[in-house]
Amino acid sequence: MEYTIVDGERYLEEIKKLDREISYSFVRFSIPYEDFAKRHEELFRELLSHGEHKFFAALDEKGKLLGHVWVCLTLDTVDYVKIAYIYDIEVIKKARGLGIGSALLRRAEAWAREKGAKKVVLRVEVDNPAVKWYEERGYQARALIMEKLLDVKN
Amino acid sequence: MEYTIVDGERYLEEIKKLDREISYSFVRFSIPYEDFAKRHEELFRELLSHGEHKFFAALDEKGKLLGHVWVCLTLDTVDYVKIAYIYDIEVIKKARGLGIGSALLRRAEAWAREKGAKKVVLRVEVDNPAVKWYEERGYQARALIMEKLLDVKN
Repeated sequence: MEYTIVDGERYLEEIKKLDREISYSFVRFSIPYEDFAKRHEELFRELLSHGEHKFFAALDEKGKLLGHVWVCLTLDTVDYVKIAYIYDIEVIKKARGLGIGSALLRRAEAWAREKGAKKVVLRVEVDNPAVKWYEERGYQARALIMEKLLDVKN
Repeated sequence: MEYTIVDGERYLEEIKKLDREISYSFVRFSIPYEDFAKRHEELFRELLSHGEHKFFAALDEKGKLLGHVWVCLTLDTVDYVKIAYIYDIEVIKKARGLGIGSALLRRAEAWAREKGAKKVVLRVEVDNPAVKWYEERGYQARALIMEKLLDVKN
């Protein structure tokens, strides 16, 4: 499968749809899809209202979306330097294993470098195989996000 | 040492000073203290400009600040439920080992529960002994923050 990486802003609605479906599969609290979709839309808008955002899209020969990366310039709250935060990187199932994710990541990193970011930062769930994927591409675990459910007695 | 836990809003300037000094010791990029202090102030203001924040302070018999916790209500970007995010919990060196940190954490959790939060979330550096401290208090690692420095060739 041939693919090209292009600016992703034109594909925002498709990107949002893909992200919504994948995100819903990660939700652990019981919530109807319609309510989830509404919150997802609000969150998307809220996130986009701050900072400088950039999207890149991977397209097939016919211009169909195969994947995307969403990156945002922000300030690290520990080191106080400009960083690029990767909100999302996704490739549709049938297009995996072709290097599209790596190509999207490299493009996001190049954009971040041009913008003067000192590092690229992202969050990944502890049990996600993507941890290893990122390690192979030069990423290191820096911090843990820890949580405690309040309806569970401790 | 006797201590009491009180609302912390009155002690915000002292809390900021303590946080600034401790945070500076974690910075890995070279930055003069004055520049750091300026950015720290900006970041503090930026963080306080969104969401519902709450501070609790631990005081000694004379009303001196021994420690604090800073918690904020926000929306989890994975589960889309209301959460309490702990920005900061600190106890001055000479007052450690007395249970003040635990008391501050419990107070923050009680506030979060009252406010309808489903969970408490926080970030801790991977090599920080606090990871174990939080685990003992019912917290579990949920996600990793990974990063790649852009001035390092990979």
